[in-house]
Amino acid sequence: MKNILVAGGCGFIGSHLCDHLLQRSDVGLCVVVDNLWTGRKENLAHVQDPRLKIVVTDVEAFQSDVLFDEVYHLASPASPPWYMTEPKRTISANLLGAMRLLHLLKPGGQFAFTSTSEVYGDPLVSPQPESYRGSVDCTGPRSSYDESKRCTESLLFEMRRTEKLNVRVVRLFNVYGPRTRPDDGRAVSNFITQALAGKPITIYGDGMQSRSWGYVDDIVEGLARFFWRDQHGYDGPLNVGNEREIPVIEVARHIAQLVPGTTLVHRDPVPQDPTNRRPDLTIARKVLPGWECRIPYELGVQLNLEWFKDHLKAGGPDQQDVRVA
Amino acid sequence: MKNILVAGGCGFIGSHLCDHLLQRSDVGLCVVVDNLWTGRKENLAHVQDPRLKIVVTDVEAFQSDVLFDEVYHLASPASPPWYMTEPKRTISANLLGAMRLLHLLKPGGQFAFTSTSEVYGDPLVSPQPESYRGSVDCTGPRSSYDESKRCTESLLFEMRRTEKLNVRVVRLFNVYGPRTRPDDGRAVSNFITQALAGKPITIYGDGMQSRSWGYVDDIVEGLARFFWRDQHGYDGPLNVGNEREIPVIEVARHIAQLVPGTTLVHRDPVPQDPTNRRPDLTIARKVLPGWECRIPYELGVQLNLEWFKDHLKAGGPDQQDVRVA
Repeated sequence: MKNILVAGGCGFIGSHLCDHLLQRSDVGLCVVVDNLWTGRKENLAHVQDPRLKIVVTDVEAFQSDVLFDEVYHLASPASPPWYMTEPKRTISANLLGAMRLLHLLKPGGQFAFTSTSEVYGDPLVSPQPESYRGSVDCTGPRSSYDESKRCTESLLFEMRRTEKLNVRVVRLFNVYGPRTRPDDGRAVSNFITQALAGKPITIYGDGMQSRSWGYVDDIVEGLARFFWRDQHGYDGPLNVGNEREIPVIEVARHIAQLVPGTTLVHRDPVPQDPTNRRPDLTIARKVLPGWECRIPYELGVQLNLEWFKDHLKAGGPDQQDVRVA
Repeated sequence: MKNILVAGGCGFIGSHLCDHLLQRSDVGLCVVVDNLWTGRKENLAHVQDPRLKIVVTDVEAFQSDVLFDEVYHLASPASPPWYMTEPKRTISANLLGAMRLLHLLKPGGQFAFTSTSEVYGDPLVSPQPESYRGSVDCTGPRSSYDESKRCTESLLFEMRRTEKLNVRVVRLFNVYGPRTRPDDGRAVSNFITQALAGKPITIYGDGMQSRSWGYVDDIVEGLARFFWRDQHGYDGPLNVGNEREIPVIEVARHIAQLVPGTTLVHRDPVPQDPTNRRPDLTIARKVLPGWECRIPYELGVQLNLEWFKDHLKAGGPDQQDVRVA
């Protein structure tokens, strides 16, 4: 039986990943370490599995007597208003987090890391293949996230080169869906929570900046296949996302139609907001044959809207927390 | 009187910087922290100044009861064979080093960091202005150096944005000169030590890859002006280098002429060796009017050759250390 460690397991994607991990019969222990900075215990409140243990602490400080067969490092805020407020802490979570977690991996164990399409910055080629070196301003206001993901990739791939570390790195493209914080601050959740609150949807700039929206169920299916289910032998970075590229304003208009009476308002563009983002899935198709994002944004947004309706109706501390991003 | 901390002060550039710092009458204490990984105590053996204290430890672990008015962070290997051998330690020295040193800075004090032209990777534009976002493979064999410099820049500039940290960041271009280790492994010192040992000079690839060689006296003069001497008010990253771009093979041929009987031998190219490198000095000219690299490589190489002759003649442990890079 395997010991599994999920750093950031109370987060949006981390909690979905835990659901999948706990479906495995070869998992004897699943330890989640999370400081609840952006993660929430509610995201795992439905789990009644004695194999799950949640430890509330910073990943950089996590101590453990047991070593782990598989380590999943998802401990990082992923939304600009969060990481831009605490850049040092963001760098620490990713990079010092990775260094700490490497100490807790069994020799020969597998280390998985959720990197990001933000390593491509504001890309000058489209779609972005994994070989694209990116266009990130390492002095800019998004850099704590982008550069700490890049540097953590470097750490892991250099550990692979020099010490044969068994690594799995995915670059995720704009994931959305249930368990996003209402105050997350990224486009889809912002638009939905604004519409449900009877407020205008805020578009930064003209809204023509594009994203490739991946519904969380599709994305986590890809992660499960890449991280443990498929035998593929690929250990480079892997784009995991939806190759259908949609302007931000199109999603906003769709949500405004779903919530009658909703209007749109434009504000100044966010500094260094990427103009476009679309994964090249050539490698993903080879490594994970048959996998793709099946849920179109029209359906995904509706599913997410229903979830937010139920969730916001239930009340709780999150409703007071909503921040304008 | 000011307390100064120089991390990496026993290194090639760090020791030259200490010489300049100790010329200041407002410096009461100059603490050097160095783990002697690539630095050497001999580099400061000539200093008979009671204000200089050398502490041999990793910068990440350095403890101090006093806080410092000025911190200079140069603690990092800078030569590919060194950082490629220990990538994790390289990332740690730069980034965890910076985090540790930030704790030792007096409120309102100045934090200076020697970044690198390697943040531009294998550049697709020439010359490279500071605004160029670079072309670094964050999964490649040079990435531990390139990405940890990029991420440390991010940390510092984000600390400036969010906490008004007073920062000075320079991007150095291929510095060479006295106090380089004989086993440093970079082109100029390799060529000279090979020629002096009666061996053929090794050229990786065709030797047409270009560099902008900056003699250390010129470079450190630029650092002294930018870090403390000039009142300039500029707090962005600053290119500091020689804008004269020379193919590697030209330097090799020049050294072969200086040491009669020396031959050249070609080996396979080094993976991801940048094809070109040349600083755009537009900002440097505005910020440091009148500063430029005055020593042409023909003279600088000769000065460096004389230094190596004296140094290698003196013997000592370094001669046994020489590694082929």
